[in-house]
Amino acid sequence: MTVTSPVSIVASDAPDQPDRTPELDGLYREFESELLVPLWTEIGDLMPHAPVSAAVPHLWRWNRLLPMATKAGALVPVGRGGERRAIALANPGLGGRPFATPTLWAAIQYLNPREDAPVHRHTQHAFRFVVEGEGVWTVVNGDPVAMRRGDFLPQAGWNWHGHHNTSSEPMAWIDGLDIPFQHYTDSTFFEFGPDEVESREAPDRSRSERLWAHPGLRPLTQLDPSPATPLLAYRWEHTDRALSEQLRLEAEGYTATTEPGHAAVRYTNPTTGGDVMPTIRAEFHRLAPGTGTATRREVGSSVFQVFDGLGRVTVGSASWDVERGDLFVVPSWQPLTVETEHGLDLFRFSDTPVIEKLHQHRVQIDPRKHA
Amino acid sequence: MTVTSPVSIVASDAPDQPDRTPELDGLYREFESELLVPLWTEIGDLMPHAPVSAAVPHLWRWNRLLPMATKAGALVPVGRGGERRAIALANPGLGGRPFATPTLWAAIQYLNPREDAPVHRHTQHAFRFVVEGEGVWTVVNGDPVAMRRGDFLPQAGWNWHGHHNTSSEPMAWIDGLDIPFQHYTDSTFFEFGPDEVESREAPDRSRSERLWAHPGLRPLTQLDPSPATPLLAYRWEHTDRALSEQLRLEAEGYTATTEPGHAAVRYTNPTTGGDVMPTIRAEFHRLAPGTGTATRREVGSSVFQVFDGLGRVTVGSASWDVERGDLFVVPSWQPLTVETEHGLDLFRFSDTPVIEKLHQHRVQIDPRKHA
Amino acid sequence: MTVTSPVSIVASDAPDQPDRTPELDGLYREFESELLVPLWTEIGDLMPHAPVSAAVPHLWRWNRLLPMATKAGALVPVGRGGERRAIALANPGLGGRPFATPTLWAAIQYLNPREDAPVHRHTQHAFRFVVEGEGVWTVVNGDPVAMRRGDFLPQAGWNWHGHHNTSSEPMAWIDGLDIPFQHYTDSTFFEFGPDEVESREAPDRSRSERLWAHPGLRPLTQLDPSPATPLLAYRWEHTDRALSEQLRLEAEGYTATTEPGHAAVRYTNPTTGGDVMPTIRAEFHRLAPGTGTATRREVGSSVFQVFDGLGRVTVGSASWDVERGDLFVVPSWQPLTVETEHGLDLFRFSDTPVIEKLHQHRVQIDPRKHA
Amino acid sequence: MTVTSPVSIVASDAPDQPDRTPELDGLYREFESELLVPLWTEIGDLMPHAPVSAAVPHLWRWNRLLPMATKAGALVPVGRGGERRAIALANPGLGGRPFATPTLWAAIQYLNPREDAPVHRHTQHAFRFVVEGEGVWTVVNGDPVAMRRGDFLPQAGWNWHGHHNTSSEPMAWIDGLDIPFQHYTDSTFFEFGPDEVESREAPDRSRSERLWAHPGLRPLTQLDPSPATPLLAYRWEHTDRALSEQLRLEAEGYTATTEPGHAAVRYTNPTTGGDVMPTIRAEFHRLAPGTGTATRREVGSSVFQVFDGLGRVTVGSASWDVERGDLFVVPSWQPLTVETEHGLDLFRFSDTPVIEKLHQHRVQIDPRKHA
Repeated sequence: MTVTSPVSIVASDAPDQPDRTPELDGLYREFESELLVPLWTEIGDLMPHAPVSAAVPHLWRWNRLLPMATKAGALVPVGRGGERRAIALANPGLGGRPFATPTLWAAIQYLNPREDAPVHRHTQHAFRFVVEGEGVWTVVNGDPVAMRRGDFLPQAGWNWHGHHNTSSEPMAWIDGLDIPFQHYTDSTFFEFGPDEVESREAPDRSRSERLWAHPGLRPLTQLDPSPATPLLAYRWEHTDRALSEQLRLEAEGYTATTEPGHAAVRYTNPTTGGDVMPTIRAEFHRLAPGTGTATRREVGSSVFQVFDGLGRVTVGSASWDVERGDLFVVPSWQPLTVETEHGLDLFRFSDTPVIEKLHQHRVQIDPRKHA
Repeated sequence: MTVTSPVSIVASDAPDQPDRTPELDGLYREFESELLVPLWTEIGDLMPHAPVSAAVPHLWRWNRLLPMATKAGALVPVGRGGERRAIALANPGLGGRPFATPTLWAAIQYLNPREDAPVHRHTQHAFRFVVEGEGVWTVVNGDPVAMRRGDFLPQAGWNWHGHHNTSSEPMAWIDGLDIPFQHYTDSTFFEFGPDEVESREAPDRSRSERLWAHPGLRPLTQLDPSPATPLLAYRWEHTDRALSEQLRLEAEGYTATTEPGHAAVRYTNPTTGGDVMPTIRAEFHRLAPGTGTATRREVGSSVFQVFDGLGRVTVGSASWDVERGDLFVVPSWQPLTVETEHGLDLFRFSDTPVIEKLHQHRVQIDPRKHA
Repeated sequence: MTVTSPVSIVASDAPDQPDRTPELDGLYREFESELLVPLWTEIGDLMPHAPVSAAVPHLWRWNRLLPMATKAGALVPVGRGGERRAIALANPGLGGRPFATPTLWAAIQYLNPREDAPVHRHTQHAFRFVVEGEGVWTVVNGDPVAMRRGDFLPQAGWNWHGHHNTSSEPMAWIDGLDIPFQHYTDSTFFEFGPDEVESREAPDRSRSERLWAHPGLRPLTQLDPSPATPLLAYRWEHTDRALSEQLRLEAEGYTATTEPGHAAVRYTNPTTGGDVMPTIRAEFHRLAPGTGTATRREVGSSVFQVFDGLGRVTVGSASWDVERGDLFVVPSWQPLTVETEHGLDLFRFSDTPVIEKLHQHRVQIDPRKHA
Repeated sequence: MTVTSPVSIVASDAPDQPDRTPELDGLYREFESELLVPLWTEIGDLMPHAPVSAAVPHLWRWNRLLPMATKAGALVPVGRGGERRAIALANPGLGGRPFATPTLWAAIQYLNPREDAPVHRHTQHAFRFVVEGEGVWTVVNGDPVAMRRGDFLPQAGWNWHGHHNTSSEPMAWIDGLDIPFQHYTDSTFFEFGPDEVESREAPDRSRSERLWAHPGLRPLTQLDPSPATPLLAYRWEHTDRALSEQLRLEAEGYTATTEPGHAAVRYTNPTTGGDVMPTIRAEFHRLAPGTGTATRREVGSSVFQVFDGLGRVTVGSASWDVERGDLFVVPSWQPLTVETEHGLDLFRFSDTPVIEKLHQHRVQIDPRKHA
C-alpha cells in the first residue's frame, strides 16, 4: 500500500509528556509510518474521568421541520432506491452525519395522499411515533397497522415492511432507528421487497394487536421469549390511561409515579417484560402542571419528542422552551431537567438496552430543588 | 431408638430377583433394622419406563360441590385458626389427603353475605378463579380486588390477604394453591394478620390493575423482573376477547389458534412474560362448537374447571360429559382428549413451571383422528 | 367406582373448630363420599408456621453399612432387572420408603471383582461419590470414567451408563439421586441398554475430563449452556487443593473461607457456573482442627457423608460423633452444627436447586457461640 | 449558535434520486442550515446489503513493533498522566485513530527493568496476553499476578491495577481493551490510584487463581454470577494441555475439534460459563501441521496474534505469511482463512459478546476446499 498513513501524532505539551527531542520526533514519525499511536498522547481524550460526548444537546423545532418535509413531499418522490422520504436530525457535534446521537437515528418521514413507501427489510431496529395525523398504514410482514396520533409502532429488525397512505391528506411522523449503532458495529444487512405493499386493507386494529394486546395474556402459539416485541402497535388510549392512573393513584396517596407529579411508562416486549427491541428503549413521560423533574444524568443517549403541552428543558448548558412536536437530544452523561407550568407529555427513546446489557450503565440524580 | 423400624422388605418373586434363601431373609431383616432398602426389590415402582402416577383421573361435579359448600356456610364459621371455609378435592389415588394432584390443591371456597375471611400470609402461591357470582373483594396488601365471573386472581406467596363479602348474596369460587408441593418440599411458612381486612373499599378496579393492566406498558416505578406477577386481576373481558380474536383470525386464514378450533391463552407475569407464579401455570382454553383436541400427554399434572359449554373429556381410561363448574384432574402422562358439540370454555392450572424449570418436561401429541 | 373412599375426616377438638353436631358429622360423611376434605381440619398440618418435616435427622454408620453391602455381594447377583446392587437409606420418618429425605435417594452400591452393572438410562439425575477404594470404571455414553477415593462423578439424567470392576477387589461407593423427587413429580422415564458396558478400557482420565477439566476454558465444540454438567469427574486432587488453598489464604489474612476455619467448594457445571444437575447440589466442606460451624438452618434437605476426620454433628435434637464414611441426613429447617477437634472433611448433597429455582429458599444463621 | 453547519448535502446522481432543480438545491441548503440530512442521499452508505466496514484487514509485524517499543522504553517515561507505555495499532481505515477495529484497542506495552506502571481504574475492560518474556506482575486490587509467555490475564472494568517489573530484563506484551467501544458509547469513567503498586510481592500464583483455578469448583464465598471473571490468570499450561487433548481425541476418533486439525478453546468466566468480560471474547486456536480452516465470515471484528508457528492468513483480499508475535485484524464480515504447513497457534480476541447480546450475530462458513 503506498497511501499516506492516516496517523499523525502531535506531541502534546501536557506536563506528563516525554521531553520533546529529535529522537522522540523520529520515533513518532516511525509510529506514523507503522500505523501506531501512543496511548500517552491520546489518553485524555480516550479515557476521560467521566463521559465527554462529541454529541451536543440540540433542539429541532417541529414548526420548522414540518414545512421542510412538506416541501420535500412536493420535490422528492418516494420509490425503490431512496426507499423513504425521511429527513434525519444531524447532531452538530457529529460531523454532519445524519445521527441524532452516536447510536440513534431520528427522522421526520412524510407520505403524500395515496402514496406508497416500498417494501424492504433490514437488520436495523425501527419504530414510528405519531405526534399528529393519521391515514397511513404500515404493513409489517403483511399485517396492516394503522398509525394515529400518540401511537408507538415498533418494527424490529429483519421484518418486511412498507407504508401506504390511504387518505387524501399527507401524513408526517417520526422514525427512530439504531442506524448509527449498526453502522458502527458493521452489522447491517438489507433486502428489497415488492415495490408496493402486500395489503391495501386498512383495519382499525392489526392482527398483532388482536393476538397480543390483552394485558397479561399471551397466545399459546408463541411461547418462547423473542428478542423483539411481537406487538406492532402500542395505542395512545392505553398509554394515556396508564399515565392518568399513575397521577390519580399518586393523588390518592399511593406510590405510582416516578417522582412527584411525574408519571412514566416503558413500552415492553410482552414475551419478556423487557425492552421492545434489543437496542432501543422507548418510554412515555407525563409531567403534571406546575411540576418538574430532578436533574438526572445517565450513561447513554436519548432523543425526546414533545407530544403535548409546554415546558422548559435544560440539557447541560442548553435550555429551551418547548412545544408540541419539538425534538431534542440528550447526550450521554449530560444533566437533564424538565419543568412545566401547563403540563407536558414527552415521548423518549434511548440506547439504554445497549448500555445496560453491556453493564455500562450509571445514573446520577440530583433531587429537585424546590423554590 | 426403640421404635419398630418402618422398613419392611418383601422378597419379590420377579424373575430377576435373587434366590430366596434363609441367608437372604436374614440379610433383609438386617436391612430393616438398619433402615435400609434394596433397590432391586423397589426398582419397578421407583423407576418405571414411563410415569405411573398414584393420582388418578377424577371428576368432581359442581352441582354436588356447591350444595355442600352452601351447607358448610350454614354450619362452619370462618375465623382465626380455621382461616378459610375451603373444601378441597382429594384425589382418590392419594390416600385421602386433600391433594387434587401430587403437587396441586384445588378447593371450593364459600363466603356468606357480609362475611370476612381473616388476613394472613403464607409462602404457598395461590389464586382464585370465579366460575359464577360476584360481591367478594379479596384484599391483597391492602389493595381491594373485586372478584367476578371469569376473573383469574393470583395471590403469590407471602402477600397479606383476606376476603370480604360486601353483598347480600353468598359467593363461591375455586382456590388453587401449591400446598401439596410446598408441604412435600417442607418449605412452608405462615403468619397471621388482622382478623378483619384492612380496607372495606369496593372499587371496580384494583390499584394493581390501574398500574399494570395496560398491554405492553409497565410503570417506571417497578422495573426489575419479579418472580410473581404484580397484576392481581386478569379480567374476563380481556380473556374472552383474546380467545374470540384467535378464533376470528383463524377464520380469516391466519395462524392464531393452537390447533383447529382451539383458542388458548396463558396468564403471564408482565415483568417477565413467564408464568404468573413460580410453581403454578394458569391458562384458558376455548373449543369452538364441533371441534376437539388432539390427544396429548405431558409430564406434570393439571386441574381443569369447565367455565362454560358442554363437552366430553377423556383422561386415560376415564371419560365424562362435563358442564359448567365441573372440575377434573389430569395426572402426569395421562392422555387427555376434549371434544365438544356446543363449544367449551375451560380454565386450567398446572404444575408445569416446576416441571419445566427442572428440565423434566416431555410432551407427546397424537393428532386428532377425524371421523 | 365402588371402592371405599380413602377420605376420613376426623373432627378436630381444637378451639377454632365448628361445634360438633349431627349436622356437621353428616356433612363430613358427605365430604368423604364425594372425596372432599375441609381446610379447617387440616390447616395445622398443611400450613405450619415454619417447615415441620416428616423426615427426621438420622445417622447411618459406615462400619455397619459396608458389612451388609459385602454380604449382599455374596447373596445378590447384579443383572438386568434389578440393575444395581444398591442399598438405600430409608429415613425413619418417611414410612419405610427408600428415601433419605423427601426428595433425595442415597445408597451404598457394591460391585464384586470383575463384575458389570448393566447399561441403562433414566431421567433421574445421579452421581457417585467415593469414600474409599478404586478399580471401578463407570462408562457414560461410552466414556469410561475411573472412580477413586474423593472423586465426585455426576451422571445427569438420560445418559447411558453402566459400571465395571476391572480389579480383583470389590468396591463400594455411594450413589445420590433425585429418585424420590422424580417419583413424586411423576416424571420418570427409564430405558434398558446393553447388558455389558460398551468399553472395557480403563483410562486414567475420561474423555470428558480431557475436554472440560481445564480451569476457565471450554471447547468451541460445545458453546451452549447445558442444564447438566458435561464434566463427568471432579477429582479429589482438585477438591483437596481448593480447600487447602482457602485455609491457607485465610491464614494469610484474606477472605476465602465461609466462616473461620471452614473452607467449602461447590461442584459446578462449567457451561453455566451453576449447579452440576438441575435438581441436585453437591459441595465439599473442610473444617480445620479445633473449629466449628455456626448453627444454620435452611429450607431444603441434605445428605452428608464424612470423608475424613472425626467430629460432632448436631441436627435438631440429635447429636452424633462421626467418623469416615458415616452418612447423616439434615431435614428441611432443622438446625445443623458441626464441631471438630481433629479436623473434618464432609461431602454434602442437597435438593437446594429445586428450592432456589422455585424461590422457596430461606436461611437462618445463628453465629457460633465461642466458649 | 453562529457556527457553520457541519452538514453538507451532495446531490447524488444515482438513478433513484430526485431531479436536480433549483428548488431541490434550495431545499438541501435549508436542510443544511437546520442540521438535517435526507435518507435518500445516504442510504447506500448507511444501509448496505451486507456489512461494509471502514476498517480494513491489516497486519502488524512483531519484529517491527518490538524495536519501536524498545526505543520508546528509552525515550518515554512511564508515570502519572501518561499512565502506560502502550503503543496502539491504528487501523488504516479508521482515520488515524488508535483503533485496531471500530470497537477494539490493541497495543504493545513495554516495561523497563524495575519499572512501575501506576495504579488506576477505568470502566474499560482490559486484558494482557504474553507472547514472550516474563518478570512483570500486574497487581489487581492488591493481588499480584505473574505474567508469563502464553498467559491470558483479564482485568475487567473498574478494578484497580498497576504493573511492576521485578526483573532485570524489560518485558513487552499486548493489551486488549474495549476503549473504542466505550469511547463511542460515551460510557468511560477513570480514576487515579497510588503512583506505585500496593504490593511488591511476586508469588507464582495469584490469590485469584488459588481461589478459582480449580476445574468445576467454586468457593462458597462468591456464589452470585458476576459480569466479569474473578479469575485473573489463565495459564499457558492449561491452555496448551486443553488444545493438545482436543487434537489427541480427534486422532482417537472422537469429536473434540472445531474442524479437522483445528483445536480451539474459549476463555470463560467461571461464574457463568460465558465470556470473560461483557464486551470482549478471547479464544485460543491451534492448527495442526498441514491443515487449514474453512473460510468463515461473521458479524463483528477480531484481532489475532500469532503465538507460535508459521502460517498463511487470508482476510478478504489481503494475504500474509505470519510468524510469532504478528498481529492482524479481521473486520466485520470479511472472510478469513488460515493455513499452515508447520502448525500454528493463534490467540484471538473479538467484540462478539456485544454483537451476540444485541442479537446482531450472523456467521457464514464456506467449507474448506481440499486440493
